[in-house]
Amino acid sequence: MRRGPDAGGLYELIATGDPLIWQLPVTEDVCAGAYEVEPFLYGGMALAAGIGVLERVTGRAVIRAQAQFASAAALGERVDLVAEIPVTAAPVAQARVTGLVAGREVFTITGACGPLPGGSAMQWRRASTFPAPEACEQVTLWPRQNPQARVRRNIEVRMRPGEYRRRLAERHTSTSGRIRAWGRVTGAPLDAGVLALLADFVPASVVLATGRLGGGSSLDNTLRILQLVPTDWVRCEIHADGLARGMGHGSIHLYARTGELLAIGSQSFLQRYFDE
Amino acid sequence: MRRGPDAGGLYELIATGDPLIWQLPVTEDVCAGAYEVEPFLYGGMALAAGIGVLERVTGRAVIRAQAQFASAAALGERVDLVAEIPVTAAPVAQARVTGLVAGREVFTITGACGPLPGGSAMQWRRASTFPAPEACEQVTLWPRQNPQARVRRNIEVRMRPGEYRRRLAERHTSTSGRIRAWGRVTGAPLDAGVLALLADFVPASVVLATGRLGGGSSLDNTLRILQLVPTDWVRCEIHADGLARGMGHGSIHLYARTGELLAIGSQSFLQRYFDE
Repeated sequence: MRRGPDAGGLYELIATGDPLIWQLPVTEDVCAGAYEVEPFLYGGMALAAGIGVLERVTGRAVIRAQAQFASAAALGERVDLVAEIPVTAAPVAQARVTGLVAGREVFTITGACGPLPGGSAMQWRRASTFPAPEACEQVTLWPRQNPQARVRRNIEVRMRPGEYRRRLAERHTSTSGRIRAWGRVTGAPLDAGVLALLADFVPASVVLATGRLGGGSSLDNTLRILQLVPTDWVRCEIHADGLARGMGHGSIHLYARTGELLAIGSQSFLQRYFDE
Repeated sequence: MRRGPDAGGLYELIATGDPLIWQLPVTEDVCAGAYEVEPFLYGGMALAAGIGVLERVTGRAVIRAQAQFASAAALGERVDLVAEIPVTAAPVAQARVTGLVAGREVFTITGACGPLPGGSAMQWRRASTFPAPEACEQVTLWPRQNPQARVRRNIEVRMRPGEYRRRLAERHTSTSGRIRAWGRVTGAPLDAGVLALLADFVPASVVLATGRLGGGSSLDNTLRILQLVPTDWVRCEIHADGLARGMGHGSIHLYARTGELLAIGSQSFLQRYFDE
């Protein structure tokens, strides 16, 4: 049995006798959950762990991955991550990881692995002007967490001074739907898993764009990775697209402090509010 | 055996004895492919057909769906669409459709079905000012097609007069990465399948943003549906995000002529050029 820490040691993938099957213990460190809620596996962490498995089983870096969430994994459970690789021969490997708790499906992750050398490089998306993280203030972004839901203790978020309190105090609905923040995962060097954790800022940010405190139950987490450029803080630009029929939809662009576009996340989620 | 036309009759889903298994004949009408290439099932059409299956097997409307492409289905082949529904009891059903040609996997579609009544409605994204379709000119967007690849004969695209020729003639690289167009599918009333067909404008548009003629081999097609508002033309706003490591990444926002945000598409693809 091999063990290896990932995403800065925030989660643990346990190898089994089958190279295509890995296990993720649902510890306090990988759980989220508001104070009155039982802790559950954080969606961005499920995607991070799935990316870890995709990269192990294909031996290549992830280009894009998406988790679709069927149900929640609770604190104390163990998720079996079962990989299949329908395409290995092509320049890009296509694989799938199913997350199961005692045989019950909790998520399906599809992913493409194996960026190609060469090709044109171009970046159209640019981060807008924003104060440096040192000039911003720390915010919580999420409602008060259950003390056993510890994943967010390791995820730092900073916003322009006063912005977060002002949005909540005024119940100020953003006209642009754009939320900007800096994010980092304590002690974790930048990798695809860290980007997956930060990309799950979307539901709380979209709800914040309505001037309220909350988040969402993600239907999916989608991540597209352009490049990994070392950076202390990741610049996060969230665009709320809209709310309709009980669902919220939004995207996030993740940049290095020096401006390089690292990745793009997007997701749809059931709206949840914690200020009622 | 039941037969039912979908997406304006552009494809045909054939029922089998198993309510979870449907068949899609790969006819000329559902194929794309440049002149020198064998016709293959258009990615947006695979997603459209998968959405058709998701809506049939769950009895609910699709909120989001994503196709991951493992290989191509060629003209004359028949795709078996095999559905699984891991979650039916929850307010949102989660399902999966695997596309197989003689047992070989060609795509996996994951989808969430069942929008909820009520909830907040909000639209942050707005289409930018753009001439009406009557003031625009028809463009081809894609390279000259194989005569047996007919799907694009039914997909009309209009752009601002002169823009398309100018971009190609000058090999003009867009600074904004934004491409705007009107799209419609001949004779098809707006449904989720039509939105899937139009959302697959992304690769050709991103390549056009570099001032070149081409497209891409999609790794995935992702679609998020907010609402269906009847409209003759769909306003398409494509954002090229970037090209990196041989891959292109971009998104598309689809609006009714009257401005309502209908859906958001995104995808990653291998870059292909046809002007070399």
